[in-house]
Amino acid sequence: MHNNEQMTKQELFNNILKKKSFLCIGLDTDIAKIPQHLLKYDDPVFEFNKQIIDATKDLCIAYKPNIAFYESLGAKGWESLEKTLTCIPDDIFTIADAKRGDIGNSSEHYAKTFFETYNFDAVTVAPYMGHDSVKPFLNYKDKWVILLALTSNEGALDFQLSPSTPLPPKTSGEQEPRLLFEEVLIKSSRWGNTGNMMYVIGATRAEMFKKVREIVPDHFLLIPGIGTQGGNLSEVSGFGMNKHCGIIVNASRSIIYAGDGQDFAGKARQEAQKIQAEMETLISVIGIQ
Amino acid sequence: MHNNEQMTKQELFNNILKKKSFLCIGLDTDIAKIPQHLLKYDDPVFEFNKQIIDATKDLCIAYKPNIAFYESLGAKGWESLEKTLTCIPDDIFTIADAKRGDIGNSSEHYAKTFFETYNFDAVTVAPYMGHDSVKPFLNYKDKWVILLALTSNEGALDFQLSPSTPLPPKTSGEQEPRLLFEEVLIKSSRWGNTGNMMYVIGATRAEMFKKVREIVPDHFLLIPGIGTQGGNLSEVSGFGMNKHCGIIVNASRSIIYAGDGQDFAGKARQEAQKIQAEMETLISVIGIQ
Repeated sequence: MHNNEQMTKQELFNNILKKKSFLCIGLDTDIAKIPQHLLKYDDPVFEFNKQIIDATKDLCIAYKPNIAFYESLGAKGWESLEKTLTCIPDDIFTIADAKRGDIGNSSEHYAKTFFETYNFDAVTVAPYMGHDSVKPFLNYKDKWVILLALTSNEGALDFQLSPSTPLPPKTSGEQEPRLLFEEVLIKSSRWGNTGNMMYVIGATRAEMFKKVREIVPDHFLLIPGIGTQGGNLSEVSGFGMNKHCGIIVNASRSIIYAGDGQDFAGKARQEAQKIQAEMETLISVIGIQ
Repeated sequence: MHNNEQMTKQELFNNILKKKSFLCIGLDTDIAKIPQHLLKYDDPVFEFNKQIIDATKDLCIAYKPNIAFYESLGAKGWESLEKTLTCIPDDIFTIADAKRGDIGNSSEHYAKTFFETYNFDAVTVAPYMGHDSVKPFLNYKDKWVILLALTSNEGALDFQLSPSTPLPPKTSGEQEPRLLFEEVLIKSSRWGNTGNMMYVIGATRAEMFKKVREIVPDHFLLIPGIGTQGGNLSEVSGFGMNKHCGIIVNASRSIIYAGDGQDFAGKARQEAQKIQAEMETLISVIGIQ
């Protein structure tokens, strides 16, 4: 949603029910990977996004431009991003996948970038610098922070899955130490609420969803990692969904690069349709309300 | 350094010896805070930076634009940044304070942004997503990653200063658990080397410098937090310096906003001179070689 209206948790849920989809399409638009015939346009990145959005907007409830791909093109990339946002219908949730986070004074400017200069509904934020790096984003009414908790990449093992507090006394015998991503969920869930904060939980860690849902049963989770990265949609839905759906599953490359010819947008639509159909089944089987 | 030459650790050290300074000036240029009379220029942010750089370039060895302040202005902000880089002499180290970090495919694009599209010498990177989020930056020859370890803000207490591994067996009685920022230093120091990696260690945590130097005795540290944030220059120099200096101390707001009239650049110079003079004393007292 890029106009002046904002999207609440209830509206997001309504859109999921209406579209029978909890699909987010990641616009990781790489000028080196888009179909050759688009290079004749003034702004090939925008043209690609426009055609992808036109072909898929009835199948998804969110778009997530990956900011890395736009900023690497310099000022021109930010112009492509701005134009792209104008093509996204107002009832679709927009996520700036930016993974920002800095001391308060600087985070205020990052928040301004994504919530004012570009009117995104949500931005992904890294937790390493703690509460005062996240709060400036939460100060915006009806905007969302999507905090990194457990990511889909191999590097998640380095710190996120490390024990993060001293082992509790071994009185009960079997208590496990808390992991860093659990500590992030516990602490950060006090900074915001289920109406202004979501978490990134990678699809490649399905075994961890039980722990996640014990800590944050009611928050929406943004789940990357199905498709190219190998996560399994029905598995993460089974573990992650709550009665208000509670998950937004992202696919990027497997959809937007499904084809590389003139019909790339049609191919992307086919791929999005497959996922939407599977989501429709999962919604009816798991039974959100 | 923004032309096609790169800056090695030795060159950086030579510049420190030559200028008797290890000062980095942070260009946190906020259009709402710069002197009013600059607003008549086409690009007030650039004009401000240009005058600050002209007035201080003989006193510092690095400039650090804080990317948050530029991107919040949209495409125009990135143009101001690009023009700013052209005013920085080739023998001055340039740091993009961007705090990026994402899965490998996306981090490659962030690295491209700062090392190719804008030819910075170094970029600040957040460690939360682990080795594969940092390595794409390290793949650039003679470019630098400056990894967040222990930041100067209050939120550092939330995770960075949490115990991060299980307590070791209490055989020796007094062993302390390792803290997350120590774990970050230990693991990440294997990803790069002292010639392509530095660490952000906040000046407000002077008591932690001993631990830092036990783990990474030879790496350069980028130290924010003196000036407005309250850290003490002689204290952090005493704890942090090694025989090749090994520290770059940043001041931003206390220098660039020292004055707000026609003579703002002169006022900034006076402030930078005070710090440089203190650094000259510290270099001679502590005795780098």
